[in-house]
Amino acid sequence: MVRAAVIGAAGYTGVELVRLLLAHPDLQVTAVTSTADAGRPLDDLYPALAGCGLTLQAPVVAEIAQVADVAFLAVPHTAALPLVPPLLDAGLTVVDLSADFRLQDAATYEAWYETTHTSPELLASAVYGLPEMSRVGLAGANLIACPGCYPTASILAAIPALESGVSAAGKVVVDAISGVSGAGRSANATTHYCSANESLATYKVATHRHTPEIAQALTLAAGRDVSVVFTPHLAPLTRGLLATVYLDVTDGFTTLDAVELYAARYSGEAFVTVHPAGRMPSTAEVRGSNRAHIGVAVDRASGTLIATCAIDNLVKGSGGQAIQCANIALGLPETDGLTAPAPVV
Amino acid sequence: MVRAAVIGAAGYTGVELVRLLLAHPDLQVTAVTSTADAGRPLDDLYPALAGCGLTLQAPVVAEIAQVADVAFLAVPHTAALPLVPPLLDAGLTVVDLSADFRLQDAATYEAWYETTHTSPELLASAVYGLPEMSRVGLAGANLIACPGCYPTASILAAIPALESGVSAAGKVVVDAISGVSGAGRSANATTHYCSANESLATYKVATHRHTPEIAQALTLAAGRDVSVVFTPHLAPLTRGLLATVYLDVTDGFTTLDAVELYAARYSGEAFVTVHPAGRMPSTAEVRGSNRAHIGVAVDRASGTLIATCAIDNLVKGSGGQAIQCANIALGLPETDGLTAPAPVV
Amino acid sequence: MVRAAVIGAAGYTGVELVRLLLAHPDLQVTAVTSTADAGRPLDDLYPALAGCGLTLQAPVVAEIAQVADVAFLAVPHTAALPLVPPLLDAGLTVVDLSADFRLQDAATYEAWYETTHTSPELLASAVYGLPEMSRVGLAGANLIACPGCYPTASILAAIPALESGVSAAGKVVVDAISGVSGAGRSANATTHYCSANESLATYKVATHRHTPEIAQALTLAAGRDVSVVFTPHLAPLTRGLLATVYLDVTDGFTTLDAVELYAARYSGEAFVTVHPAGRMPSTAEVRGSNRAHIGVAVDRASGTLIATCAIDNLVKGSGGQAIQCANIALGLPETDGLTAPAPVV
Amino acid sequence: MVRAAVIGAAGYTGVELVRLLLAHPDLQVTAVTSTADAGRPLDDLYPALAGCGLTLQAPVVAEIAQVADVAFLAVPHTAALPLVPPLLDAGLTVVDLSADFRLQDAATYEAWYETTHTSPELLASAVYGLPEMSRVGLAGANLIACPGCYPTASILAAIPALESGVSAAGKVVVDAISGVSGAGRSANATTHYCSANESLATYKVATHRHTPEIAQALTLAAGRDVSVVFTPHLAPLTRGLLATVYLDVTDGFTTLDAVELYAARYSGEAFVTVHPAGRMPSTAEVRGSNRAHIGVAVDRASGTLIATCAIDNLVKGSGGQAIQCANIALGLPETDGLTAPAPVV
Repeated sequence: MVRAAVIGAAGYTGVELVRLLLAHPDLQVTAVTSTADAGRPLDDLYPALAGCGLTLQAPVVAEIAQVADVAFLAVPHTAALPLVPPLLDAGLTVVDLSADFRLQDAATYEAWYETTHTSPELLASAVYGLPEMSRVGLAGANLIACPGCYPTASILAAIPALESGVSAAGKVVVDAISGVSGAGRSANATTHYCSANESLATYKVATHRHTPEIAQALTLAAGRDVSVVFTPHLAPLTRGLLATVYLDVTDGFTTLDAVELYAARYSGEAFVTVHPAGRMPSTAEVRGSNRAHIGVAVDRASGTLIATCAIDNLVKGSGGQAIQCANIALGLPETDGLTAPAPVV
Repeated sequence: MVRAAVIGAAGYTGVELVRLLLAHPDLQVTAVTSTADAGRPLDDLYPALAGCGLTLQAPVVAEIAQVADVAFLAVPHTAALPLVPPLLDAGLTVVDLSADFRLQDAATYEAWYETTHTSPELLASAVYGLPEMSRVGLAGANLIACPGCYPTASILAAIPALESGVSAAGKVVVDAISGVSGAGRSANATTHYCSANESLATYKVATHRHTPEIAQALTLAAGRDVSVVFTPHLAPLTRGLLATVYLDVTDGFTTLDAVELYAARYSGEAFVTVHPAGRMPSTAEVRGSNRAHIGVAVDRASGTLIATCAIDNLVKGSGGQAIQCANIALGLPETDGLTAPAPVV
Repeated sequence: MVRAAVIGAAGYTGVELVRLLLAHPDLQVTAVTSTADAGRPLDDLYPALAGCGLTLQAPVVAEIAQVADVAFLAVPHTAALPLVPPLLDAGLTVVDLSADFRLQDAATYEAWYETTHTSPELLASAVYGLPEMSRVGLAGANLIACPGCYPTASILAAIPALESGVSAAGKVVVDAISGVSGAGRSANATTHYCSANESLATYKVATHRHTPEIAQALTLAAGRDVSVVFTPHLAPLTRGLLATVYLDVTDGFTTLDAVELYAARYSGEAFVTVHPAGRMPSTAEVRGSNRAHIGVAVDRASGTLIATCAIDNLVKGSGGQAIQCANIALGLPETDGLTAPAPVV
Repeated sequence: MVRAAVIGAAGYTGVELVRLLLAHPDLQVTAVTSTADAGRPLDDLYPALAGCGLTLQAPVVAEIAQVADVAFLAVPHTAALPLVPPLLDAGLTVVDLSADFRLQDAATYEAWYETTHTSPELLASAVYGLPEMSRVGLAGANLIACPGCYPTASILAAIPALESGVSAAGKVVVDAISGVSGAGRSANATTHYCSANESLATYKVATHRHTPEIAQALTLAAGRDVSVVFTPHLAPLTRGLLATVYLDVTDGFTTLDAVELYAARYSGEAFVTVHPAGRMPSTAEVRGSNRAHIGVAVDRASGTLIATCAIDNLVKGSGGQAIQCANIALGLPETDGLTAPAPVV
């Protein structure tokens, strides 16, 4: 068994990682940490894990290094900066779910996150943790920067059209909707039940921090600069994220062409399903699982490809994808611990 | 008191009309009809209306004409076709909430609704019931074609930029999210609680019948052909509709410019609020009311205006707007019966 | 117009009062107060009230007394204690929605609320604000103590059987379910969307502070000591409260007898509907309205009367009932401002 | 591997069984049937099972008997009657999730289900499938009658007090709340999203068919006749069931006594957790899992024990419990296939 620590296990991302790891055949949770809740049994915070036997401890790198081979960092952005170098020095494989090592350009990170990047020298070796795009680099990687939930769905929806050259678009519109768990465990006016329930909201238009991350990946896929217009929405559900992307395509490109292109691009992928023409995905189809379901259509009149990708923001958009990356990095079967069917209703 | 009949009062649109009319100072409901439920007290179907004293009757034009001055048609598309001519002949003002008289071009209607239009000669005199766009024509109109819920929000979000020439876009992307009541009262796999709850779905991409209606209005506003790429989504809430539109704008146009433009365009409108820069609307703000709340932002890098409009699909997107139109047509104060503040939570 | 102040207008109870008062024909809101949000326009906090023109001010009794004839206190328990005496001294009618003057016995208050009652001398003159039980006392009252949301529904469900002697029960089981708005506007682990959504919870079994209030009313109705076993539950909806009561009844008493008894008891009540045998209420029927819908059944085998009462916790369980009481106290028509039909869906 | 057939796999109960069986280490799904949807791939109905490779077939006993060792019957009541005898004759172990073999007395069945029982001779050998009550009988059983969802939670909440004699109650009040999936996959006015959402409803008071089943079990546990007053409620969530029971207890019995009694009763149970004093369960704690979480309290003043049990109606209340029973009957580890931790949010 490979020994795994979850740093930041009291948040939604962290506890979902723990849940998935508890059913993993080759990874064993040996440490769970939380600064605020150190000392508390994890199932005291989350009775759903009754009997898991894990107690939160303070995040001390030296202690973690003694009991773990891989560390999952489920911490807010900037909090991973001081943790990553000593964990790497101690020889651990680091799977970082924060934003701190996702952007290859330190200046872009500093502009969007309004803070100094303290380890820019590590950015070149950090591998972006989207296996469907960067599987080769993940094998043997020791620092993996897992994508945000919005980027995961948006990138999967857009790259087949960009990589193939079917779209020469210089601008991609990304319109996405998220459930409330994406806002994390912190209780505030936005996450209050009576605010979020029975409401649809638009927020952070053109200013959401996932924008440069999406642009970086689409630019890489297209082989040229691609600018991204990204509008996130909040909807009244706990789990689920649906991203719809709009790309100009060449005249004569049809919905059937698009289905064929996407199906071919993802034909070997264990977690990606491309729906046939006329069928669009819902997040219910992927709730609780590491799957991404994609539907595509072309509006012939305007020459626009519309692609929608549905994921569970806490699994493929977070903890599940982190495990998928760790499996690849550690040489384990990629689907290990991620194959349990999700609840249908 | 002006006497009003609601044709199709058993559906969600019809019963919402009844609810609003019961509090209207100048309009009195004198007849409510339903083919399937004729003979039943309305509060038997909807206990929320306990004591309203209305009984559903079969929709017989001759009987309706005897007791009503204005008829609201809350019926499915094609069902208004045989009703409108005799109601007009009987001298009633007709406010049609179906799609049958919205498209000025009969051929477009026939292509999208796959049926023959039996009264194409009435299309020229039908006034599109979006007061913020066609108030002049509504005064004294005898046939009003109320917009669909998606078009109401989408058009309000887009026209300031098109009318003003700020956007010369030939293509407008409309990405919209609706609550489940938009699908009507019919019980089916889509409207089952366990299907709709905790799920986000994309549907009818590039094929939704509201597309030509939006395109017709945007083309009129722009004074040139505008093509519309329209993607509807379904989210787990009962009431609420949020439409986001994307338009190319000229270099140098800023968010503050956009706020100023939109605020000026809607400055005299009783039911439209434009939010200041940095604030985007939610449907909770307009739930139960006839209001439309709009937020705008400009992505400078790509020269894109993003505008979001939030409405209650059953009020401003349906029954409330129909009453607003009737008020104008009948020479009543435009806001009559529509001013009660909506529940805040 | 009678001038009204809402003390504590930033909370859910307060803002719902404001919403209802804005549509009231005889009461005019002249002041809204909030300690935390003094200085902010109310529609800045609640965009649903866009254009209401009210600005929150600090709760200074001298200022309130100059502009208001009646003061509604939508404050937490203990916060009304220092406010009520000076408001009464200034000649205002006080409608207190806190718990501070509900219990006639100061010692009971002090035991359950773990604080000293600073104005026990006012308890004798405070009238319990449940018009269906204490209408006579409300006429001309200058201090009204409005019931909690759970007591309103529970008492309405139980008193016909107790007053009539049909039930000689010494113990009444009250099992009730509330929506999340009952927990107020404070953001915490319980009110976080992801905690409340998709969950049913039992809480404060046999320890909820509404227990002595229900017992006091049932004891009064029965003319003998009645003990109450009260279990509250939390369910994932914003508005709505459903209370089910269980009372032993005499042999031979039937469901039809119960329907007849309850219908007679509430025959003159504008806001109470008793359903026919075989029909039970839902909170959807009363959402947004001041109505209480009651259904009754008798289990013959065990001689048990089961009565369910559905209310909207923020209207009949709070702000609406306060206005109903104020109407009576001020000699206005009891239903003033409370007759707008509620949304059906 | 033991080969398993799921009869009625297109409904919510059936497909949840399939989901759980797909992750079972010792049971393999070899046949899934549906009368209405025979011929369709299961993942066509439920895209969440994409790639499961199962196709629905007509429920022909001879064909099922050739490929399966155990048959799970996820069919409506009365539909199991003709299927059970031939399946038993063919040597299969039958796990029936319908109501047809739950009541030991055929007359009671016929009175409540208004139909003739065609195999009363099998009732004596049918074992009630609640392992925490009837584990001994389940070992080697060939006909298991799984409890309904309401009985599972209600019985678990009540029996420690009755078996122990702590309660001598002749009447037990059971007040329970269910999510909408309990109403099944059929689309109708009750299961329409806009009816169920944002509403709490009471239904079938004193007439729900689960009543005699609960009474039978409580009578067995108490060793004397116990009558049950059962009130079900419907709340707006998909999964989850919370049952609260009220039992008279002897003077001096305390909450701590109750916690001790319940904890001892269930100390060896893998799927039952008894919370410490002061903590009550929520269904979020057990969502997606086979667990039952129980909280207890005693109201000293009235001598009443209140116990709440939370389950997932589709797992412990249905498919999960069926697998737990099958594991016991077949000599497999009782927790096989049921240990994956459930999502925390």
